[in-house]
Amino acid sequence: MAGNTFGDFFRISTFGESHGKAIGVIIDGCPSKIDIDESFIQAELDKRRPGQSRITTQRKESDTVQILSGTFQGQSTGTPISILIPNEDQRSKDYSHIQDKFRPSHADYTYQTKYGLRDYRGGGRSSARETAARVAAGAIAKLVLKRQGIEIFAHVSGVGSIEAPNLDGSQLSDLLEAREDNIVRCADPATAKEMESFIDTVRKNGDTVGGRISTIVRNVPVGLGEPVFDKLHADLAKAIMSINAVHGFEYGSGFEGSQMLGSAHNDIFIKADEGVKTLTNFSGGIQGGISNGMDITFRTAFKPVATIMRDQETIDAAGNQTTISGKGRHDPCVVPRAVIIVEAMTALVLADHLLKYKAYLNNAT
Amino acid sequence: MAGNTFGDFFRISTFGESHGKAIGVIIDGCPSKIDIDESFIQAELDKRRPGQSRITTQRKESDTVQILSGTFQGQSTGTPISILIPNEDQRSKDYSHIQDKFRPSHADYTYQTKYGLRDYRGGGRSSARETAARVAAGAIAKLVLKRQGIEIFAHVSGVGSIEAPNLDGSQLSDLLEAREDNIVRCADPATAKEMESFIDTVRKNGDTVGGRISTIVRNVPVGLGEPVFDKLHADLAKAIMSINAVHGFEYGSGFEGSQMLGSAHNDIFIKADEGVKTLTNFSGGIQGGISNGMDITFRTAFKPVATIMRDQETIDAAGNQTTISGKGRHDPCVVPRAVIIVEAMTALVLADHLLKYKAYLNNAT
Amino acid sequence: MAGNTFGDFFRISTFGESHGKAIGVIIDGCPSKIDIDESFIQAELDKRRPGQSRITTQRKESDTVQILSGTFQGQSTGTPISILIPNEDQRSKDYSHIQDKFRPSHADYTYQTKYGLRDYRGGGRSSARETAARVAAGAIAKLVLKRQGIEIFAHVSGVGSIEAPNLDGSQLSDLLEAREDNIVRCADPATAKEMESFIDTVRKNGDTVGGRISTIVRNVPVGLGEPVFDKLHADLAKAIMSINAVHGFEYGSGFEGSQMLGSAHNDIFIKADEGVKTLTNFSGGIQGGISNGMDITFRTAFKPVATIMRDQETIDAAGNQTTISGKGRHDPCVVPRAVIIVEAMTALVLADHLLKYKAYLNNAT
Amino acid sequence: MAGNTFGDFFRISTFGESHGKAIGVIIDGCPSKIDIDESFIQAELDKRRPGQSRITTQRKESDTVQILSGTFQGQSTGTPISILIPNEDQRSKDYSHIQDKFRPSHADYTYQTKYGLRDYRGGGRSSARETAARVAAGAIAKLVLKRQGIEIFAHVSGVGSIEAPNLDGSQLSDLLEAREDNIVRCADPATAKEMESFIDTVRKNGDTVGGRISTIVRNVPVGLGEPVFDKLHADLAKAIMSINAVHGFEYGSGFEGSQMLGSAHNDIFIKADEGVKTLTNFSGGIQGGISNGMDITFRTAFKPVATIMRDQETIDAAGNQTTISGKGRHDPCVVPRAVIIVEAMTALVLADHLLKYKAYLNNAT
Repeated sequence: MAGNTFGDFFRISTFGESHGKAIGVIIDGCPSKIDIDESFIQAELDKRRPGQSRITTQRKESDTVQILSGTFQGQSTGTPISILIPNEDQRSKDYSHIQDKFRPSHADYTYQTKYGLRDYRGGGRSSARETAARVAAGAIAKLVLKRQGIEIFAHVSGVGSIEAPNLDGSQLSDLLEAREDNIVRCADPATAKEMESFIDTVRKNGDTVGGRISTIVRNVPVGLGEPVFDKLHADLAKAIMSINAVHGFEYGSGFEGSQMLGSAHNDIFIKADEGVKTLTNFSGGIQGGISNGMDITFRTAFKPVATIMRDQETIDAAGNQTTISGKGRHDPCVVPRAVIIVEAMTALVLADHLLKYKAYLNNAT
Repeated sequence: MAGNTFGDFFRISTFGESHGKAIGVIIDGCPSKIDIDESFIQAELDKRRPGQSRITTQRKESDTVQILSGTFQGQSTGTPISILIPNEDQRSKDYSHIQDKFRPSHADYTYQTKYGLRDYRGGGRSSARETAARVAAGAIAKLVLKRQGIEIFAHVSGVGSIEAPNLDGSQLSDLLEAREDNIVRCADPATAKEMESFIDTVRKNGDTVGGRISTIVRNVPVGLGEPVFDKLHADLAKAIMSINAVHGFEYGSGFEGSQMLGSAHNDIFIKADEGVKTLTNFSGGIQGGISNGMDITFRTAFKPVATIMRDQETIDAAGNQTTISGKGRHDPCVVPRAVIIVEAMTALVLADHLLKYKAYLNNAT
Repeated sequence: MAGNTFGDFFRISTFGESHGKAIGVIIDGCPSKIDIDESFIQAELDKRRPGQSRITTQRKESDTVQILSGTFQGQSTGTPISILIPNEDQRSKDYSHIQDKFRPSHADYTYQTKYGLRDYRGGGRSSARETAARVAAGAIAKLVLKRQGIEIFAHVSGVGSIEAPNLDGSQLSDLLEAREDNIVRCADPATAKEMESFIDTVRKNGDTVGGRISTIVRNVPVGLGEPVFDKLHADLAKAIMSINAVHGFEYGSGFEGSQMLGSAHNDIFIKADEGVKTLTNFSGGIQGGISNGMDITFRTAFKPVATIMRDQETIDAAGNQTTISGKGRHDPCVVPRAVIIVEAMTALVLADHLLKYKAYLNNAT
Repeated sequence: MAGNTFGDFFRISTFGESHGKAIGVIIDGCPSKIDIDESFIQAELDKRRPGQSRITTQRKESDTVQILSGTFQGQSTGTPISILIPNEDQRSKDYSHIQDKFRPSHADYTYQTKYGLRDYRGGGRSSARETAARVAAGAIAKLVLKRQGIEIFAHVSGVGSIEAPNLDGSQLSDLLEAREDNIVRCADPATAKEMESFIDTVRKNGDTVGGRISTIVRNVPVGLGEPVFDKLHADLAKAIMSINAVHGFEYGSGFEGSQMLGSAHNDIFIKADEGVKTLTNFSGGIQGGISNGMDITFRTAFKPVATIMRDQETIDAAGNQTTISGKGRHDPCVVPRAVIIVEAMTALVLADHLLKYKAYLNNAT
């Protein structure tokens, strides 16, 4: 109820503040006998880690995962897997200046009003640092999905007004390689260069910029998703919208599709060697809320980071007008690090629906 | 789990197929002593009812609500309110022709594969008829919110490539009046005319078209929404994306905001007579997942209706290529009727969060 | 949250008051392709129906089930099954005399205080009439369990101080036959006679008496139940304790076992043709919260019915002392009708856990 | 779903195995601004700690609590409170002898069969060590309840066939003092002596014995508990039955009440200075599933500890007959340490219902 738990079957609960002792997650519902590859979990976290390039915050965190429970002799036991990520570089003094001021477009004001107090150090619980716990849990979800051959790929498809060309149908492994080849995490090298230099300019101006991430999920069996309220795309929307700074979500044809005619938008079914396919995929791999076996595709919009290295007008706790100066260490653009968070949330939704699917499938036949 | 239940505190469960005996809803968690105005519930349903104008399906349904439980002497008792809406005009023969064929961009194929059978009459459970039950429940949620002064307004802001100008800050009651003045349910009279004639053309061509709905929620107290996963906008996104045909959701600055710089996007806090306000509202009334007292604003994209009055290629249950011809009675554009569904789902999310907010508020002070 | 929903996967929501238009239930999560035998559902309800013998309330209700949704051509479709049971014999005048008085050991006072109003007619929502909806849902759960060969049997093992001998290991079908052979629903004919004449005496005195029900569940596969909080016996305890008038629950060795030594209580594992068994079954078929393949056994205590045909002291809504006289039509002893309710709640718990078990099993291997 | 989470509003998730790195708990939903007294939490844990007397296991664990998140400047912030309890004395070698054998009346066989593997060291997740995490969370729940004046008291009312006299209506603080005066935790000094010497004898014989715990909750406002399925006593039953070794639960008149006549069992309402009371309290402070303001009373039965210091017949993983010898360090009788676990689970249920109560109360008036 209090909002720190996600999922029904493959359920995670995260905890921890930006500048507390540690952050972490409990995964309740990971099936037993999954090989838990710690190096993979660490590798996933490293993609989200601060300080990985000049266009990310310079905060120093090794983000080293400690698995405290739920595994035995390298495999999941079916009991809760708890993962701890200690906070190292806290520099709480950096934040004393915002103790009594509300940063524009941050959660300071709403937290203070809702709870009557707040851990103001680095945004406390509202800090995007919480997403490191999601990435760790998402890595385990990916290990569950891998056994079904389900693959997830996300990349930066837009920064400011720069837009990458649509991805062709190539292997996700190739796209992944291309993406990791540049610090923006865009699978199109030419666009990546453009984005990189633009982010540099923005950073030098002490400003920030928003961006977009596109996701493809491949090899999802037909039947994932529940009708009516728990449609697969509805659960994906909630999962993705719950990531800090996300302001928009669309799947398949999305907002553009709302301008189209039905005669152009309908996906015609055809018989293919691998079974039923559709000629087009405006449905984004989901029909009636249930996966239809085609690629699941969606796109996410991130607002610009609220912390800018400039003076801004605001009010203090007493309600008086004041000025706040940007300090601390922040990202000029979040999308390069957010790519892995989007993949993690996607994996969590799919792992949860995969278990639901099997619960009923078992009985339907 | 099976996806027909929505909400935690103010929880609804809907049931019923398009051509079964009835559809309906149970509302579990409506506080006691709410005046249950049946005529208001009926009036809400009438806005969703088929056959209300030439640009909606001509299926004849009076959609008369029957309250079976949960009220006593005109007030809610705190026990489950169950509402029944009998199906009248069923014409099941209309659907025999699709018994063994999968309609393009419908849920026929995914339901058949997931469940091993389906009620093919009018889409059965996947029919948008299910949303009548949501509207009835949403009407009761609105009665709960009304006591807090919370107002919800949605209208058609786009049809095809036609886009209405942004709404000014006028009274929601005035906008409501303007909206109900035309059959498209757009609060801008000039744009409404344009949309209406465009939908007429589309209909005459046996085609359909998509559209967009914009929503404003006013007078929400500061503090609704839970941090991390159950952010207010994340729950709104899930609720809205669960409506048939919705392909996109954005709040506040949305996708456009992802092109902006932080220096332009940040909402500056100011001191106002009514308390703290922000100069701009790119945050859409929600910061850190929690309402900040400003108007909550979001926009929704609907794909074009899949049923068109034309022949289309498809496959049958046996996997053979075949042709399907559009029959039955359908809407050329869903958004005029969907406006009330969007309001209903919005009300359900807010009523649920209002109760959560009070549970914790009680204890925080 | 509001307490009218039970189960996660095989989830039911009941609604309706004793003297409202109807009571009913929605079953959300019944797997598809289950043969829905309406005559079986009706037969189950007939065992709970009032007026079935001289030792039950003489209220006249046919309790005729109407299935409104979720089935197609005789099978479940995987969508919500909604069942309606209209109230026929309401006699609301019977209850005007308690409108402003609190009946001793009834829910009148707590409901009035919690909700600020109550439907006082026949106890409204707190009436045991609500359990008819549970029996209907339980019948469908039994149809799901039947496919796995799981059998549930309950009977009246105690009335007042009369106690039936422990059941031997005979076929449940034989026990069922013996049970239905008498109006008390005790599988031991001799004890049944004794109970019957005792209840007659109690009834003639205008009094009521409590009793006990014993349950056996057979052919449960090893592995149902989740560790820690959702232990199989913990979920059974909640389900059974939620039945009106239940004051106690014990499984396996129960309270008696708490007087034993470990050396006598431990169930020794042995190798048997049908697999692993235990020599004794003090564990009641559940170890560590998980079914071990042996018979699941538990016992339930019911308090005497609160409504007696005598004058009693009490207070009115204004807090003044007054007298209340027993009126209306009530059972001198509930256990003969409660047997089927205990079976229904047991079936609901097992169906829910069966689906959970399969969700994880799928992945564990 | 996987059973390691308890509660809706005041929700805990526990993790950790007996011989892993640590055990712990996340509390999600603790209201903000609660003074978090760490010394109180530690004091509660010390009452459950092993090695506290000669009649408890001699395993050495300091059970030192580490709060990792959710508090700021000594108060709860409304964000998840995570508590870590490192495992110190692990002695895993003690358990190699049961790696391939199933201990009678333990969870070895069911875990192995359900999950396909198990952490056999000290019972892994099925070890009662998990309850230390519940006690830590329960301590915080008690701090929440304390602000409402709600008091919880449990003590050992039975060991083997020894039964303590019923508690009189004295102050709970006095009873608490009397209870902590002896190592059995029975509030009746004479009975405590008797129990103590009996447990000594049992221990010297390498055997174990079961027992009973009685609980009183005082100053609960009228209105806690939800009708139908989430009755207050039903949720208490589930919570208590989920504690290792519990085989029975009864509230108010319990099993004895099932032998009584209604005329003797009904609790007559009277007008008292402090408001409405009942002359007797066979209802155990709960009517229709909702607290009525009287003392809430219930009793719990614990089976004898399964691990005895004797040789027992059993089978191994291969299904062959074998012998297992009792080793390791275990309690001859669990109830003295379980008292605090029963209090903790009671506090968790009440804190959860208190928040629910306030969510709806807010709106009912």
